[in-house]
Parts: sequence; structure tokens; C-alpha cells
Amino acid sequence: MVTADKKHRVVGTRPIRHDGTDKVTGRAAYGADLRLPDMLIGRVKRSPLAHARIKRIDASKALALPGVQAVITSADLPNPADRVVPFGEGSSDLKDLARNVLAADKVLYEGHAVAAVCATDAHIAEDALDLIEVEYEPLPVVLDVREAMLPAAPILHDGLRTKEVGGEKGDQPSNVASHLQLKLGDTEAGFREADLVIEREFETKMVHQGYVEPQNGAAFWNRDGRLEIWTSTQGSFVARDQIAALLDLPVSKVRVTPMEIGGGFGGKIPVYLEPLAALLSRKTGKPVKMTMTRDEVFRATGPTSGTYIRVKIGAKQDGAIVAAQAYLAFEAGAFPGSPVWAASRCVFTAYDVPHQLIDGYDVVVNKPKVAAYRAPGAPTAAFAAESVIDELAQRLEMDPLDLRIKNAAKQGSRRADGATHGVIGNDEVLLAAQDSPHYRSELQGENRGRGVAHGFWFNIGLESSASASVNADGTVSLVLGSTDIGGTRVSIAMQLAETLGIAAEDVAPQVVDTDSVGFTFVTGGSRTAFAGGWAAYEVGMDLRRQLIERAAKIWEVQPEQVEYADDGVLRGPPGDDGAPRAITFRDLAAKLPKTGGMVVGRADVNPKTSGPTFATHIVDVEVDPDTGKVQILRYTAVQDAGTAIHPAYVEGQMQGGAAQGVGWALNEEYRYDDQGRMENPTFLDYRMPTALDLPMIETIIVEVPNPGHPYGVRGVGEVPIVPPLAAVAAAIHDATGVRFNTLPISPAAILDKLLPDGD
Amino acid sequence: MVTADKKHRVVGTRPIRHDGTDKVTGRAAYGADLRLPDMLIGRVKRSPLAHARIKRIDASKALALPGVQAVITSADLPNPADRVVPFGEGSSDLKDLARNVLAADKVLYEGHAVAAVCATDAHIAEDALDLIEVEYEPLPVVLDVREAMLPAAPILHDGLRTKEVGGEKGDQPSNVASHLQLKLGDTEAGFREADLVIEREFETKMVHQGYVEPQNGAAFWNRDGRLEIWTSTQGSFVARDQIAALLDLPVSKVRVTPMEIGGGFGGKIPVYLEPLAALLSRKTGKPVKMTMTRDEVFRATGPTSGTYIRVKIGAKQDGAIVAAQAYLAFEAGAFPGSPVWAASRCVFTAYDVPHQLIDGYDVVVNKPKVAAYRAPGAPTAAFAAESVIDELAQRLEMDPLDLRIKNAAKQGSRRADGATHGVIGNDEVLLAAQDSPHYRSELQGENRGRGVAHGFWFNIGLESSASASVNADGTVSLVLGSTDIGGTRVSIAMQLAETLGIAAEDVAPQVVDTDSVGFTFVTGGSRTAFAGGWAAYEVGMDLRRQLIERAAKIWEVQPEQVEYADDGVLRGPPGDDGAPRAITFRDLAAKLPKTGGMVVGRADVNPKTSGPTFATHIVDVEVDPDTGKVQILRYTAVQDAGTAIHPAYVEGQMQGGAAQGVGWALNEEYRYDDQGRMENPTFLDYRMPTALDLPMIETIIVEVPNPGHPYGVRGVGEVPIVPPLAAVAAAIHDATGVRFNTLPISPAAILDKLLPDGD
Repeated sequence: MVTADKKHRVVGTRPIRHDGTDKVTGRAAYGADLRLPDMLIGRVKRSPLAHARIKRIDASKALALPGVQAVITSADLPNPADRVVPFGEGSSDLKDLARNVLAADKVLYEGHAVAAVCATDAHIAEDALDLIEVEYEPLPVVLDVREAMLPAAPILHDGLRTKEVGGEKGDQPSNVASHLQLKLGDTEAGFREADLVIEREFETKMVHQGYVEPQNGAAFWNRDGRLEIWTSTQGSFVARDQIAALLDLPVSKVRVTPMEIGGGFGGKIPVYLEPLAALLSRKTGKPVKMTMTRDEVFRATGPTSGTYIRVKIGAKQDGAIVAAQAYLAFEAGAFPGSPVWAASRCVFTAYDVPHQLIDGYDVVVNKPKVAAYRAPGAPTAAFAAESVIDELAQRLEMDPLDLRIKNAAKQGSRRADGATHGVIGNDEVLLAAQDSPHYRSELQGENRGRGVAHGFWFNIGLESSASASVNADGTVSLVLGSTDIGGTRVSIAMQLAETLGIAAEDVAPQVVDTDSVGFTFVTGGSRTAFAGGWAAYEVGMDLRRQLIERAAKIWEVQPEQVEYADDGVLRGPPGDDGAPRAITFRDLAAKLPKTGGMVVGRADVNPKTSGPTFATHIVDVEVDPDTGKVQILRYTAVQDAGTAIHPAYVEGQMQGGAAQGVGWALNEEYRYDDQGRMENPTFLDYRMPTALDLPMIETIIVEVPNPGHPYGVRGVGEVPIVPPLAAVAAAIHDATGVRFNTLPISPAAILDKLLPDGD
Repeated sequence: MVTADKKHRVVGTRPIRHDGTDKVTGRAAYGADLRLPDMLIGRVKRSPLAHARIKRIDASKALALPGVQAVITSADLPNPADRVVPFGEGSSDLKDLARNVLAADKVLYEGHAVAAVCATDAHIAEDALDLIEVEYEPLPVVLDVREAMLPAAPILHDGLRTKEVGGEKGDQPSNVASHLQLKLGDTEAGFREADLVIEREFETKMVHQGYVEPQNGAAFWNRDGRLEIWTSTQGSFVARDQIAALLDLPVSKVRVTPMEIGGGFGGKIPVYLEPLAALLSRKTGKPVKMTMTRDEVFRATGPTSGTYIRVKIGAKQDGAIVAAQAYLAFEAGAFPGSPVWAASRCVFTAYDVPHQLIDGYDVVVNKPKVAAYRAPGAPTAAFAAESVIDELAQRLEMDPLDLRIKNAAKQGSRRADGATHGVIGNDEVLLAAQDSPHYRSELQGENRGRGVAHGFWFNIGLESSASASVNADGTVSLVLGSTDIGGTRVSIAMQLAETLGIAAEDVAPQVVDTDSVGFTFVTGGSRTAFAGGWAAYEVGMDLRRQLIERAAKIWEVQPEQVEYADDGVLRGPPGDDGAPRAITFRDLAAKLPKTGGMVVGRADVNPKTSGPTFATHIVDVEVDPDTGKVQILRYTAVQDAGTAIHPAYVEGQMQGGAAQGVGWALNEEYRYDDQGRMENPTFLDYRMPTALDLPMIETIIVEVPNPGHPYGVRGVGEVPIVPPLAAVAAAIHDATGVRFNTLPISPAAILDKLLPDGD
């Protein structure tokens, strides 16, 4: 670990996570574990067609089945208002959200929900699905982003008009929802200056986050109009706001209790089942629980975009990049909202490039509406840009890290999104990678190759709330609104402990429902340890102020005479005996009950941005020329964490992101037939890497503290998925001499190139 | 209602309670409703003897029964430390609490817990009880408070020494745990001044609160050492502290989630089952739930004391009371801790009596350890004092209310406990009673009589915590640590709504677990609407400060230029257009997300005392001379509420207290055989009044605001049980000419007096 000067007591240590025992013993309660009295089970009737008009839905036979309690269709949803619902790292039109939750006039992808049923048990509910008759008028489908952009393509939404650069709307129906552009300098002039210009095109397929726990949602619509929701979500408040908007309720009528979450990676931000369970509960007066199968998760939740990307980069002979241009076309799935905007903000942002032009297109196709997936948009953009840079290094005969270090963005570098880089750890990460044992080692052997790639992610800030109360035994109960993903309970608790000068174990963090804590944005965007930790720091400072006042009262001095030191000791002026007054946090806590009562602290923070981060990954592979199988021999992830609050969980994020990126590079893809039917909706056929497929991933944490956070935290969860796609492709090129510009680089794809004659 | 000048918008209205729907539809979750995965059911083995030495406990046969998972005895409890555990309106020695929870060397009352078992279902657990063999050596029992005080009485605790007035301890084993004395002036001199002195002795029996929901407790002792408790309790924090002390754990290792409570009246403050469930859970690694039967509730929880009281009062011919003396001997049950201290503080405190002497005795007997019961100690003390005052009025030929008005304590009157009355509503209550339609009406008919009595209760303050967060739709989520009894959710929410100038319905109150809110003392002592409401007021003021800052930021003015008015409108200096700036709470709430984020408020208050209250009750009865049955014809309760936050719930408290008092006066009593076996442990035999036994109880709320509270609140829950015992006795005297000085005045007791020759 490359660390900044340490002066912390708790931050940077590795305490056992507070929820560890619950998680390893199976006591932690996930969405599917919920049992409520009289609970009904709901199931969703889904479209077998990828594009069709709904002519008729007849639920009479289903309703006649004993045990069936209610059936709903889109007619049961209130008419959605014309407004935008912000969530995750983007936002969604409420109408689209409503139509995604239950199809109205048309189904737009295979698996699109058309009705939902609830019954006294799961088997009856399942049987009832077959009894719901839906008559469709099939329509032609469009599945590929480039085909969808053609004028003759089947149109998904008759009312959709392209929102052009500058904001004006097109006048013809189109599948292109929007076209955005980022511009810096003059790329034409830039490319004229270049000694070498490389332009390549890239294609990636839709991939899924692959969280272990399927989506779920339970609801009880009380007779007084209050709606209770239990769900495994990345953001209880954002879920609440979506549900309230969809059901046209004031947010205060909806309480969301977040269950433990078995992975999300961005996919557990939109709601799917919760509003259906709510409507079924309103119809029946009973609680209703719904849980997806794995098949439904694949077909009907939000994977990330398939893309078509062109990247053109021009450099001087000495390696200085003078101009860069990108064309990014992203599949949004059935409704607008791909992460092309984020891809555009990231594609060249790790580098100081004077002339940039980036065009992004958000395109609807007959596939599920995409959702966020770890650094949304950035991995495929980096796959394209970093592959071109790798080729530039090869052509310029430069070390690929030297080329990146030469061009690395620094404090003050201008970004295509109009911002300017602040204090960043870009150089430090690249240099640490170059200096790593892995990069300095020599790779030997047949069919082996090494690749590197670099990545950037901006990270978001936004709102977090917390409150805490001091117990008489010197411990502190901390109340949070952030679902715990990847150990955020402990990382936030540690920041409160640091502020108070007590042990991490003496803070007991609780994740509570939306009525019991202030508004807290999603666990995502790499914001939780950052903004949640900041809220915990402010809570700590609020407690310190009150404890200073209490000590002053006990000592009969002025609060200004009392100092709260970082070791958790309060010190005051000398007493009558001449000895300086001092009391520890723990001793003062014990005195609270009899000196005016306990103290509680609260905070709500809303930072606009979080500190951006960079990552460099190094990977060695061996390609089996007979089978096309790629073996990952060694993998090192280097990353700037700002300050690593709990290094073990930073390492976990780095390893997890790398593992997901390797899967994306080598095997993962949604495979569709020509009618838009997914062919591989199981974990046997949708091939994610397992522990057997990967070596232990080595990690190097670089610490360049974020000056915009009390403890220097930067988001760490997303950037590690940005470099792997390009790093693996570069390694395979190094091993085989072939550049693969289409993902996944599956055994079939490799054999196709290595044995071009079909041997 | 006799009201103070009203200037409130929400306080004093009658909104629907927030938890109303849950309560009337059966959705509210009480302790027994809890279901946890793999949950075991526990039962308690109880002593059939009222006093015996435990020679041997053999659980081997029980443990051999298939399905039985564990058995515990007192040997499984940690050795209790030598400390006092404060709770409710008193405190308890930890050793006593431990020995009450599980008997150690001796059983001290019938029903005393000697072991506990858990099994896979309730039937097996029940069967296992018979298989636990306990060998006893019977000891002589003592059941009556006066017998227990005799030197030759069987001794319950060999180590118990009387704590005498002044604090010194006796040198002989005794059943008298303590003797306290309150003194004002010189009673001997006082009685010499009196023209008329009356001295009478009184006796009352042990009675039970009679809450509908039996005690319950569930526990899960996690493998990381954290203990989760679910229980129906009046105070989750006080339960937590008792459990932590009994199990020798830091409080931060114990989390108590309060379930809804089906009545408590003071009896749901001590723990009984929770520590047993915890120990059984630790032994089995599974959650364990325990629920009492009604029989167990009667025999083994905490009723209130049987008493022997002597009262002597001297008055001048004009009615001026010059001296008063009381001797109060209270049964504590098997361990010290009767409410004789509170009875002593209340017995004469409604009156301005220059010379007072009060001696109180706390006496152990072979009955269950008493717990708090609504104004603990005061009803029986008032029964005695008010009966003597009624007789004084009769002898002096004065109207009984005139006599009380003449002697009523006023602001500045000295109290026997050393305090001085502040602003009180004593006169106002008495005058309102005298002026009531009921008192001014004439009572006609044979065998009918009218009685009045007056009562005082001091009310307690102590610690309450709250926090609240503003939602963007203009509603506020309020987090409380007080179990809701009698509508405290709504009465506390109303005080926050008043402070913010919004509707009561726009505040959503939540009762949360002990890790999710600051320390909050029990719901009891008539403190909850007082101290909880005060905390809500402070939360509101904290929010107002933050909202003022936000409005100032939006308007670009100084916070000092913004005023938050009581109508919920923030007003600032004129804007550029010359018009005054103004924004409602609701509109400002909508702007919070985009102007820096939501706001959260918090408060912790710890008032030492609450405002004392007074009550006068008027009752008309008809006594059937053939059966001895007393019919309540009409009943009016008059009471000072300070400010009635939610008048319907104040009335409910007044009616509930009167109903319980009528039961105490007429029918309720623990009946024991000479071996200390309770003969009436069912609701069929332990006769509480039902709706058929009572008329609609009329209420008159008097409002003399408490200057020690932001909204003038006084506690209202307890004082209504103080006058009924004496009022009913006075009415029966008026109807029959006989003074009954022993409770209950059952049909048998009446016939015994009216038909003295056994006809």
C-alpha cells in the first residue's frame, strides 16, 4: 500500500465488520427471508415476445383458480405524471418507469411484465400465470444499436423524438433518444498536428451485474392509506420516491424498510416488483411478497448497455496525445436512459488531451431497460480508448505505461466535460503500477502475454444523513440510511469512531427504515463511505460540541476552556488542586445520565461531488491455441483510494471489480435469437467467472487524500471495473498478436481468429 | 372543559391517532405475535410453595424428552453485582432482581421461577415442566404486612436488616426493609390546637394492574455476543439496562426492540422472561420466545401492595386542618421495593397542613414482588386520608368539597417532602368539581349515596430523546424511544407539529429500538407526553433554526433577518421587488433537496420533575341491601391536565383510571389460602369491572398550564386512579351509613356489615 502520512487511530485499520457474524451464520435477513402474517405470494406474467402490441388481457380463468386472490395490469397503475424521477447515477421519465413496471399498450422486450397475480402460495400463483390469457399482435424487433439507429428500423416508441445537442428535438420518430456532445479545443486541427492517428471501432454486448440475490419486494398497503415496503435495495429513499411517484402517493405515506442486500452493483436501484406487490396488497388487504427467479432477473431487470464505439486518437512521435475523438452509441434497452453520458464524461478524462470531441447516442432497442452497473458506461468506453492507446504504444514502440504517464491528466488539466481536475492521484497510480513487483517481473512461456490498462471514474457525492446517541457505557449507537454493501456499516462507523477518539467496536451502526433517519441517497456511485462517512464525521463533531458543554458544566468552567482532543480525552483548565482537568469519552459518557442526560448528534450532508479516482490494472494471460481458452495467470489492481478507511474492504472492491471486468472481457454476454429471445438466462449458460477461473488478485492501494473530505476519502467501488476489459484484450494481443475489438473474447472468438479457415 | 386561554393550532385538537388503523385492524404486532426462523418456545417451572428452601433441581428427565433443547436454573445467571438498578418510579437491588427472575437457594412466593426450559414447540415445553424435579424443604409463610412486622414472624431474607430513618441499619434479621419518615412542623402541638381529631385504620389487599396482554419476551443471543430482545415493555431502555445488568453485559451488546404493548400501568417495567429467553438462546444458539399464561401473570409478575394504614387528622371547628399523621405499612412482596415512599409523598400533599408526620414501612411477605401500578402507593394512601377527611366533613357538618377547598394547597404551600408547591391547579379542580352538573344535581332514591374524594400525584420528568427528519413533501418523520401507551405517539407528534406550524397528520411518529434513538426513560410516571413532548418541541426548535438558515441562504439574507412564525411561515425582509419574502414550511421542504439537502433535528431532554396534578372524583352509587351489590349510577372525574394536548386521550386516561379505581374499591383482591396459594388467578375469579359494570364516566378537564413545560403539559395518566377508592367508599357510606375501612367493599363485606347477625 502506498500511503499518505498517517495520523489516524481508527481510519486505516481493519476491524471485524459489525454485521460479520450475521452474514456468515446466515442470520442476516434478506428480502426473500421475510415472513409476514397472512402473506400472499405474487408472480409476474411476462411477455414471450420482444415487441408486440397487447390486444387483450383476460384474467378471468386465473381469478377462478382457488387460492388466487388478485390480478393486476397496467390499468391498475395511476396515470403517470409528466415528470422525471431521479435515481442512481441518472434519472428516468416517470412514464417510462411506469411502463417498464407494467407494459401498457405494447411489450418492448421479452420478459416485459404484462400482469401480476397473487395467491395463497407460490405454486398456485405460478399456475395462475398460465391461465392469464394475453393476445399479442407481433411487431418487428430491433436488437442491435446500429440497426436501431437506421431510418428504416422498427420504431419502439411512436412518440420518441431525438433530443439533439443543444436541446432541440427531431421531428421524426426515432430510436435515438438523445445525442450529446462534449467538446474541447479543435480536434480537426489537433489531428493535423499528430504524427500518428489510429482509429478503431469496438463492439460490446449487453451484460448483467450478476448479483447473487434476485430482486424481491414485499408490500402491505394498510387501510389507513399507508404503504409499507420491504425490499433488498441499494437505496431505500430512492425506492420510496419511485414507488410514491408510481402510485401517486405522498412520500410520507410510504415507508421502505431495507432488507440486507445480496449484491446490487447498480441493478438494485430501479424498482420492479415493489409497486406490483403494493397494488396486489391494496386489492387484497394482505401483505404480498414477490421474488424473481434467475430467469426473470436476466430477462427483466436492468443489465448494462451493449455498445458500438469508435475511437480515434492522434499522437506526436514522442507520444504526446494531441487529439482524441469518440463516437459512442449505447443501447438503452426498451426505454431511454443508457449511461452513454457517463461514458462520454470518462472516455478520455484520465489524460490531458488538448483537443477532444465526443459524441454520445442513447438508443432504444427491444431488450430490457438498462440500469446502472458499476461505473456505468466507463468500462466499455475505456475498452475502446485504452485499446487504441495500447496500439499507439506498440506503434510508437513505447512502454504502454510510459505513454500513459506522459499523457496523464494532472491537477489543473481541462476535462471534456468542462471541469478542471483538482487534486488527483493519477500519476501516483500509474507510477505505482509501473513500480509494482508484477510489472517489474518478466513473463515467460509460450502463448502468454501481458496487458495493462488505465481507468477513470468521477464518483458522485449527494445526500446522506446520520444520527447517533451516546450510551452510558461509552459506546455509541449510529443510525444510518445507507444499505450496507461491501462493508459500509463498518467504514462509516470507523469515521465516527475516529472523530470521537474511540474504538470502531464501540460504535454500533444500524441501517433503519425511511421513517427513522433523514434522507439518504443510494448506496452506489462510490458515494457511501464518502458521504456517509462525512455525515458520521459531522455527527461526531455535533457530539463533541455537546460533550464539551457537558464537561464544562461538570467542571464549572466555560465551554471555550475545554478542548476535545483526537484521542477522545476532554481537557480543561487546572482545577482547585492545580492539576489539569481531563476526562475520557468513556468516563464522561458514564457521567451523562446524572448530569443532564445522554446526548444525541445528527447530521445531513449533501456534497455535490466526490473525489475522482484512477486505476491501473496489469494482467498476464495464457491463451490455449487449441481450445481458445484464456487463463488469467496473474492480475494486479492499483488504485487511488484517497484515504483507505478499511483497507480490507477497499481491496475487496478492487478484486471484485477486476473479477467482474474479466468476466465481461472473456465470457459474459446476453445472447439473443433473431426474435429477441434470450438464449442464456441461467448462470450455467451466462458464464461468469468463478473462483476457479481467477488467481488471487493482487492489490496496491495508493493514497492521495481527497481535500474535499474530512478524512480524505475517495469513492473506491466503481473504478476497478474500468480497466479490466482493455487490460485483458491487450494481454491477449500480446499473447496472440491479434487485436480483439469485440467483446467477449470467448474461446469461439479466439479460435475464429487464430484458425481463420475453420479448422 | 375548563380551559386556559388558547393560542395553539394543533395542541388541544383531536386528530386520529397515527397507529389507529393498525390497532383496530389487528395489524399492530404485540410480543406474542413475533415469529423468528427456527424459534424455540420457552416455559417457566414455578414453585407451588410460597416459602421453601430448594434442596435439589434435577432436569435430566426433561432434557431427555425429544424436542427439549435446554434447561436453565439460577446457576446459569452470572453472580449479580452489588448495585442498584433504577427503573420505573423506584429502583431495585440487582441481587433481588436476579433472585426474582430465577430463585436461588429459596423460593419466596407461590409461582416463583425456579427453572426454565425451551423446546421445539409449546406442548413439549409444557410437558417438560413436569419432568423437572425440584425437591423443597417447606418453610413457614407470612402473608400479612402486620404479621410480617412482628418479631416472631418467619423471616424471608436472613440477611435483611431494617434501614431506619436516617440511614442506620438494624442489627436483627427483619422483614421490614426500611422505615422512612417525612416531617413538617410539630404534630403533637398541632393536634393540641385541634377542635376535632379523628384517627382511623385502613386495610387494602394486593391488587393487579390487569393489563390484557400477558408478559412476553423473545431473545436471540448472536454468536458475536450481541443479544437481541423483543418484548412488550413500558421502557425499552430500562429493559435493556436491567437485562444487561442481570447478564453482566455492556448495554451496547443488548438491543431491545419494543413490541406494541397491550397495557402496562407500571407492571411492564421489570423484566421477568427476557433474561431467561436470553440464557436459553445462548445455550441453544436459536431464538427463544416466552409468553406467560394469565395464571403466571397473576402469581409471578408485580401487582401492587396490600397495605395497613393509620391516619389521624385534627381540624379546627371552622374546618381548618391543623395536623395530620399517617402510619403506612406496605407489602413489598418477596423483595423490598414497595411504593410506600411515593404514598408518603402524596398522602396529605393536596392540602396545606402545617404539622405533618408520616411514617412509612416497606415490608417483605411471601407474595410476588410488587411493581409499579398507576400512581404507585397514592390510591391506598388517599383512600385512608380522604376517608378521614370525609368523616371530618360529616362531623363538622361541612360540604365535603368546601372542607377540601378551605384546606387546599396553593402555590407556596409547604409539602411534607420538603418541597414547596409551584403553580398548581388544585383550587381550580376542586371548584370545577363543585360547579359540575353532577355535583349540582340532586341524588334521589333509596339506598343511594354520593361520595367525593380528591387526589394528588407528583408526576416525574426524566430523560427523553427524539429525532426528526423533514421530507420533501412537507411531512416530518419523528423517531421516538417511548413505547406508545394511550396515544403517546399522537400526543408527542402533535407537539412537534405545533412547534413547526404544520398539521398533526404531517408528522409520522415511529417507535424504534434502543440502538436507533437516544436514551429514553419508561412510558410511565405520567412523563411521556410531558418529557417526550418536550423533546419533540426541542427537535422542532432545532429544525426551525436550520430552516431559518436555509431560507436565509435561498433569499441571500442573514439568518437573523428571517423569522419562523407559529403558523409555519418563514418571513424575511422585502426582496428586490419590494414585497416581503415569505415561504411556508411545506414549500421550503420542497426546496430542501436542491438547496443543500434535507434537514434533521434532534433533542435530548432530562427535566428533573414534571408538573403535579390534582383530581376530584364524584360518584353516585346504589347499594342493594339484599345482595350487597354496589351499582355505580354516575361518575364524574375532574382533573388538571396542565394543557390537554389531545383531549380525547386525556379523557381516556381519566376514565381508565376511574374504572381501575372502582374495581379496586369494590371487587379486586388477591385471595390467598393460609399456605400462600392464590385462590383466584383468573379473570373469572379476580373480578375486574367490565363495561357492563360502569356507566359512561363523565370528564371535566381543567387546564392550569405547567410553567415548567413549553406547552404547559402536566402528566395526566396516573392521578385519576387516586380518588376513586375513597370516593366510592364515601358514596357507600352516604348510601348505607356505614364506613368501610377495608377494601374491597365486596358484596360479602357489605352484607357482613348490613346483616351483622348472619341473616
